[in-house]
Amino acid sequence: MSVPVAEGDASVTLVHPLLAERWSPRSFDPEHVLSEAELASLVEAARWAPSARNRQPWRFLAGQRGSEAFRKIFASLMDANQLWAGRSSLLVVAVAAERDAEGQSLTGSGYDTGLAVAQLSVQAHALGLHAHQMGGFHADRIREAFAIPEGHIPVSVTAVGQVAPAELLPQPLRDRELASRERRPREETFFSTTWGQPLLLPVQT
Amino acid sequence: MSVPVAEGDASVTLVHPLLAERWSPRSFDPEHVLSEAELASLVEAARWAPSARNRQPWRFLAGQRGSEAFRKIFASLMDANQLWAGRSSLLVVAVAAERDAEGQSLTGSGYDTGLAVAQLSVQAHALGLHAHQMGGFHADRIREAFAIPEGHIPVSVTAVGQVAPAELLPQPLRDRELASRERRPREETFFSTTWGQPLLLPVQT
Repeated sequence: MSVPVAEGDASVTLVHPLLAERWSPRSFDPEHVLSEAELASLVEAARWAPSARNRQPWRFLAGQRGSEAFRKIFASLMDANQLWAGRSSLLVVAVAAERDAEGQSLTGSGYDTGLAVAQLSVQAHALGLHAHQMGGFHADRIREAFAIPEGHIPVSVTAVGQVAPAELLPQPLRDRELASRERRPREETFFSTTWGQPLLLPVQT
Repeated sequence: MSVPVAEGDASVTLVHPLLAERWSPRSFDPEHVLSEAELASLVEAARWAPSARNRQPWRFLAGQRGSEAFRKIFASLMDANQLWAGRSSLLVVAVAAERDAEGQSLTGSGYDTGLAVAQLSVQAHALGLHAHQMGGFHADRIREAFAIPEGHIPVSVTAVGQVAPAELLPQPLRDRELASRERRPREETFFSTTWGQPLLLPVQT
């Protein structure tokens, strides 16, 4: 699958293919089914993520397409995501503990949960699949549908599946699918001695 | 480098080696120096992470050992981390925007920043290096030392370097370095139709 990186930006070629070829498709193959081994590897990739003091402040709700869990997660998505996410093979809600056992706030729990979902996403790519994380869902609907206890916050929904040709998508999703990936320049992202002073790096090749 | 996974827990073998072999060492080689290309690839791995609406709510402060930035970051670490982190080749502070342009809170920014640091960590392993994230630092010292503007919160410090034999570490760090990695069972981490009901997965091999 080609990666729609912004033309002329070769920087992404500096990183490992599992990261360089990572993007967030909407065009999933609605016939694709995860094997049990694939599902297990996605679960384990998230589970073995690092976290502050190994407190693992994450829980996940997951369902394969056709399952009750999948239907409940799908029903909680915002309209724009319902246009495409039903074609994915797996939907996963990431839930962060609002406070840890010592009463520390969600800042760190949300961060740690991001680490775990990133590992799940890398594993998806290692399996030849893609993952698309969404912030566009109704957290209250998920909370109610799954009886999530107080003190736990759904922070993302991730769709995992096999990419299908973008041409199968209706407009305007198709144009969006083929758009270039873009990021803020690294000089505005990595600083060194003081805030705003770019970290010196070799010239991009 | 062997991975000290809990004995009898083969689950980690289900995931890609870049994740399975990821752990957080304290025993870094104090002679190791990152090449410019390695540094660039770590930066790009973080920069190309996904984020909600591609808002990239992260900034990083980074310095190689011997630089002023490294000294300032090191000076902000809590004592327990100063025992070992000075031997790493690179220290990176991850900073999350407190609110995005639309006034949304840090929950999502912290999560997204975790995604970016996870990608940096995976890239470190792809380079034959290791990354160790820390929550134990004095955020106010970093804020002052780097003149971080209001509305931005340092959320982690990551040490990157080459692993050296644990035997070089003083006690009790040495025993800790050799301890098994452990995680909460997956049945208590991944749920399906409702909270607390384990996601069904094949038996571990």
